Amino acid sequence: MLQETPIRIIGIDPGLRRTGWGIVETQGNSLRFVSSGTVTSDPKCDLASRLRQLHDGLSEIIHSHRPDEAAVEQTFVNKDAVATLKLGQARGIALLVPSLAGIPVAEYAPNAVKKAVIGVGHGDKKQIHMMVNVLMPKATFDTDDAADAIAIAICHTHHRQSAQSRLAMAGR
Amino acid sequence: MLQETPIRIIGIDPGLRRTGWGIVETQGNSLRFVSSGTVTSDPKCDLASRLRQLHDGLSEIIHSHRPDEAAVEQTFVNKDAVATLKLGQARGIALLVPSLAGIPVAEYAPNAVKKAVIGVGHGDKKQIHMMVNVLMPKATFDTDDAADAIAIAICHTHHRQSAQSRLAMAGR
Repeated sequence: MLQETPIRIIGIDPGLRRTGWGIVETQGNSLRFVSSGTVTSDPKCDLASRLRQLHDGLSEIIHSHRPDEAAVEQTFVNKDAVATLKLGQARGIALLVPSLAGIPVAEYAPNAVKKAVIGVGHGDKKQIHMMVNVLMPKATFDTDDAADAIAIAICHTHHRQSAQSRLAMAGR
Repeated sequence: MLQETPIRIIGIDPGLRRTGWGIVETQGNSLRFVSSGTVTSDPKCDLASRLRQLHDGLSEIIHSHRPDEAAVEQTFVNKDAVATLKLGQARGIALLVPSLAGIPVAEYAPNAVKKAVIGVGHGDKKQIHMMVNVLMPKATFDTDDAADAIAIAICHTHHRQSAQSRLAMAGR
């Protein structure tokens, strides 16, 4: 097997007030933590300015860390339409910024993310954090959103590998 | 009274498939149509690419026409949460793009837009189009969304003028 080049992945957990991000690197079967953090917007500003703050923060991170691929959590659509709309606006920015940088963006449902790190499609935030620490002992995160973002990035490493092995199988 | 400088306003009616835009110029009591159109995204592309298409289209228009102020319609939140989320994502881009260009962005509820052009807070698309044609005989539009965007820009000219006269009254 050829030596694979490392692939850097950014996971993003979008939110208007706090957008978590986490970057991991995968090479063959190894997985390495790179960095994580939280981009915030100022609730005292108008909506357009807050979206710009999220855009500027995420752009800076992508510029510094130069990920190869991005993964964004699919929003949980709930009964509160106003909250859904607010989240939708923040999510639009989370999808746009990597796309503007020419990076492919994958989307994962919350239960796919849970399945990737906990092993089952349900579980609370505490279990996600615990498993992020088990899978990646060196990972550090400042907020729940950053921990979730790392989990989203880990989820993408699983899915992209199985997609690649399917391609490799088909190409035999 | 001093000769006022013309103020150019872009109205935006956001939507993932079609985002309408309309540009008008106001100077004192006069109102002039500048341009309008529709930015579309390709439904065959993934969501991140579609949002980038909206971003690129709106950026180009703002770059060519250099508006001073922007106005975006507030989204009608309905019972279909999936549709609300989709619209929210497109709306995030419609608010972001003028903000990235340093343009202040106002938001108006659909009934404020109707009140500005029809005179009452309710009415259908046909009435809005008719009144856009009455208020601005030279206006042309390729889609319903572009006509709505012109109505949003007209609505903003009314509101910004009354805000300015309130300031002038307060300053006497």
